[in-house]
Amino acid sequence: MRVLGIDPGLRNLGWGVIEMRGTRLGHVANGVIHSEGADLASRLLSLHAALTRVVAAHAPAAAAVEQTFVNKDAVATLKLGQARGIALLVPAQAGLAVGEYAPNAVKKAVVGVGHADKAQVAHMVRHQLPGVDLAGPDAADALAIAICHAHHLQGAGRLAAALRGVA
Amino acid sequence: MRVLGIDPGLRNLGWGVIEMRGTRLGHVANGVIHSEGADLASRLLSLHAALTRVVAAHAPAAAAVEQTFVNKDAVATLKLGQARGIALLVPAQAGLAVGEYAPNAVKKAVVGVGHADKAQVAHMVRHQLPGVDLAGPDAADALAIAICHAHHLQGAGRLAAALRGVA
Repeated sequence: MRVLGIDPGLRNLGWGVIEMRGTRLGHVANGVIHSEGADLASRLLSLHAALTRVVAAHAPAAAAVEQTFVNKDAVATLKLGQARGIALLVPAQAGLAVGEYAPNAVKKAVVGVGHADKAQVAHMVRHQLPGVDLAGPDAADALAIAICHAHHLQGAGRLAAALRGVA
Repeated sequence: MRVLGIDPGLRNLGWGVIEMRGTRLGHVANGVIHSEGADLASRLLSLHAALTRVVAAHAPAAAAVEQTFVNKDAVATLKLGQARGIALLVPAQAGLAVGEYAPNAVKKAVVGVGHADKAQVAHMVRHQLPGVDLAGPDAADALAIAICHAHHLQGAGRLAAALRGVA
């Protein structure tokens, strides 16, 4: 099954799709969407249209979005929130359940520690998805979110299998 | 022409549609959308679907959304931002330009002063739209935003007419 990860942002929205076969992961595609438009509504519209094309092109069966880092800059938080609304809406419109993970949970799943920097995340994404060509740091983060969600789904699958074994 | 006003919120999203004929305004419809769903993505999906139905039912030619009050509670700001992303997206998807007004600008346009309270706003909305039955405070705020945008469009129309007279 294919898993979509999204790193939301109003100017740059990273996305990445991986293939999960049992415990094996493979890269499918990744990219960065740059919103266009003179006003905020137009930019959100362009984000929505581009992300909808990504979902249609790669047909993921699961999706996850990074939980936004809430910082002290309220204006930046509001902008990010608006982009994040679109990032959550698009996979939901495709009928997908949408997982949410805090940045530290994503880093811990991919790098092994919660305080990894962007370079370490990109390094481990390249290691886990051999041959991947990263569209940029936001795309690397999006693939890391997809990997984190895949681990979560694998864990849930193993738990379900174990419970079936017990029953 | 019909003007849609939206007061964004994740739990309660107010909307109101008015008819503008020259300098005369009339009430068309108003309501409050309560988002439903177990997770955030589902709730944003339900907001999007309900607001899309409002736009389809009342076919506004213009729309405006209140600029979110950025407060010190970053988590609340983020939630509001996500709902606001949907509020801006839906009219843009219908091909409408979306105006944005600060709460004080809306109050000044409707009540005459920028520091009016909710009761004063509802009172003046009832006064300017005789016979209106308000669905709640959020719907009153949404109609106030529509009135504010109508005044703005009327002013722009008068300016264009004046400029045509000069040319």
